[in-house]
Amino acid sequence: MLTESENSQIDTLFLKLQEGVQRFLGYPIATDFNYELLYRFLQFPLNNIGDPFQDSTYAIGTREFEREVVDFFADIYHAPKDDYWGYVTNGGTEGNLYGLYLARELHRNGIVYFSEDTHYSVNKNVNLLGMRYIMIKSQPSGEIDYDDLRESIRLHRDVPVIIMANIGTTMKEARDDISKIRGILTDLVIQQSYIHSDSAFCGTYAPFIEPKPAFDFADGADSVAVSGHKFVGSPIPCGVVIVKKRNAERIGEGVGYIGCRDTTITGSRNGFTPLVLWYAIKTLGKEGLKKRLNDCLEIAEYAVEAMNRHGIPAWRNPNALTVVLPKVKESIKNKWQLATSDVSHIIVAPGVTKAQIDTLIQDLVGDLNI
Amino acid sequence: MLTESENSQIDTLFLKLQEGVQRFLGYPIATDFNYELLYRFLQFPLNNIGDPFQDSTYAIGTREFEREVVDFFADIYHAPKDDYWGYVTNGGTEGNLYGLYLARELHRNGIVYFSEDTHYSVNKNVNLLGMRYIMIKSQPSGEIDYDDLRESIRLHRDVPVIIMANIGTTMKEARDDISKIRGILTDLVIQQSYIHSDSAFCGTYAPFIEPKPAFDFADGADSVAVSGHKFVGSPIPCGVVIVKKRNAERIGEGVGYIGCRDTTITGSRNGFTPLVLWYAIKTLGKEGLKKRLNDCLEIAEYAVEAMNRHGIPAWRNPNALTVVLPKVKESIKNKWQLATSDVSHIIVAPGVTKAQIDTLIQDLVGDLNI
Repeated sequence: MLTESENSQIDTLFLKLQEGVQRFLGYPIATDFNYELLYRFLQFPLNNIGDPFQDSTYAIGTREFEREVVDFFADIYHAPKDDYWGYVTNGGTEGNLYGLYLARELHRNGIVYFSEDTHYSVNKNVNLLGMRYIMIKSQPSGEIDYDDLRESIRLHRDVPVIIMANIGTTMKEARDDISKIRGILTDLVIQQSYIHSDSAFCGTYAPFIEPKPAFDFADGADSVAVSGHKFVGSPIPCGVVIVKKRNAERIGEGVGYIGCRDTTITGSRNGFTPLVLWYAIKTLGKEGLKKRLNDCLEIAEYAVEAMNRHGIPAWRNPNALTVVLPKVKESIKNKWQLATSDVSHIIVAPGVTKAQIDTLIQDLVGDLNI
Repeated sequence: MLTESENSQIDTLFLKLQEGVQRFLGYPIATDFNYELLYRFLQFPLNNIGDPFQDSTYAIGTREFEREVVDFFADIYHAPKDDYWGYVTNGGTEGNLYGLYLARELHRNGIVYFSEDTHYSVNKNVNLLGMRYIMIKSQPSGEIDYDDLRESIRLHRDVPVIIMANIGTTMKEARDDISKIRGILTDLVIQQSYIHSDSAFCGTYAPFIEPKPAFDFADGADSVAVSGHKFVGSPIPCGVVIVKKRNAERIGEGVGYIGCRDTTITGSRNGFTPLVLWYAIKTLGKEGLKKRLNDCLEIAEYAVEAMNRHGIPAWRNPNALTVVLPKVKESIKNKWQLATSDVSHIIVAPGVTKAQIDTLIQDLVGDLNI
């Protein structure tokens, strides 16, 4: 049993979170989920250890649900029907690490190219994997500078090309165009290449944007990683990585101990988040995700217009849920939990309301430091 | 809403798990936990992103609880009081990967030494990190062969030594003795070395075994990784890694986006499992963990005696909760979810009862293939 003071510590946390979630505009994280129906599964030591497409002697898990989740994302990403594989990860970083790992195993001496607007974790991943990389300039929108990319690749045509494409970037939600990137590789007759699509936030709704951004297997990606806790929403960070099966088969070995192959970055794996994602895709479906996107797009448009009307030079990329504004002052950054680098942004993730936008604008106008 | 057939799919899963957990003797996983009090926190998008010892603009998390968990384990591992750092991981593999990553950054050209009884994930980790390694023979008990270790290091005295010590091994729960290993390094006057203690299962109770195994900072370890979902028990895989702070400071960079340093392997991080571990250490305390150990030790002793009485040549290492038996046949392996390589084992994790042991023995005796 907890002591009285421990109980009060935990109640205080609950109130703090309840309050904090009301002023949560800076991250691409949905807040409108409800997975109460699944809580009963938390009485079990769930573990989807090893390859989700193989059974394990460890039977307390949710791998059949995980497979359905992988199938769903493979489908919306136009992965080759008989040649995909994937798993539910602990989040975007693990999905990107897995994609890069695969790329390194396929192309041992490759150089990784990614734009300066790329998420900070990619640097960490390439360092972890000991890979060479070249950082490419970005356009003002945040999208990769294709001329700089072409020129950089041109100078290293003897080396395999590995691309981390942003769908979209962390601060401005700019989306690199994988078709254009493939075009550059074709032009330069690059024979060994790998394109990983880091679709952390956008991956769940990009399939429903019209016109569809060039971000998936149909556009030339070799793997796609997406976060589950961002647009779908989850109490626990999670994600999905989809790759080509023939590539995945290059790594991972059979392990007698668990009675299946060890093909994932982590060994023991969360069995609860596959249920969360399964529940979400079943209850929302493609139509629900599309509606979710349109609702957010409407509020994002509202936010830019209302801010502009109040003299705040906010803007957003086409069909983006991220509204970029000049760097806000510290008090506002902290109050609204606004991720901030050289600019600030708000992200209209599911759960964000017009009323919240209005209150933020009042704060910005009343206390303008931008 | 779920359809009727989806609802029935999920109810079927529940029943399967409820049943499966009754015959769950092969893995070092406690089943006797109850965290219902914490379920209410799953309505929030918890995320302990970045360094737990720094605040982030992402305020929907449990970092202050995570710090208490890290402090608790640092204390029972005799980490240097003013020079430790750590975080709650997604499980043993991430903790070991982090320890090896740190070792590689400190000793760029080091060779990693580990015994042939080492968990399969270590091979994956060294490959991921691109590190050289030498596999060392094991003694029949599963403990590393110190002569082979000494001889192998002696042949490479010009190269930094990185040791992955098993506390204990996956199949036999043998514990490598870090004092002895330190002794070898001292004898050979090795100047650059790093010892990581992979204490996945034993790490939570080894501090309470008498005499204490030589496995922690007091014995010469530079880092210790432990699993949270094993001896403590958790519905979601998790763990803790404790390292020396001055070493951790060598990696990780400040990230404006999240307003804190990015020092962990994964970026977005589970905020629920720190609460689980916090709740467990608060309600159990050191005394509770010690009692938990003694209860398990008693049942493990019972298991060996009862099996031997029935002609089954079961054995266990001193003070181990793992009972090693000859390889069982497929039907028994699957029924009881027995991890099996060249031998089989049962593990008396918290939640295992004498009644279960008795039933297993009936199965073994009735169907003896060993």
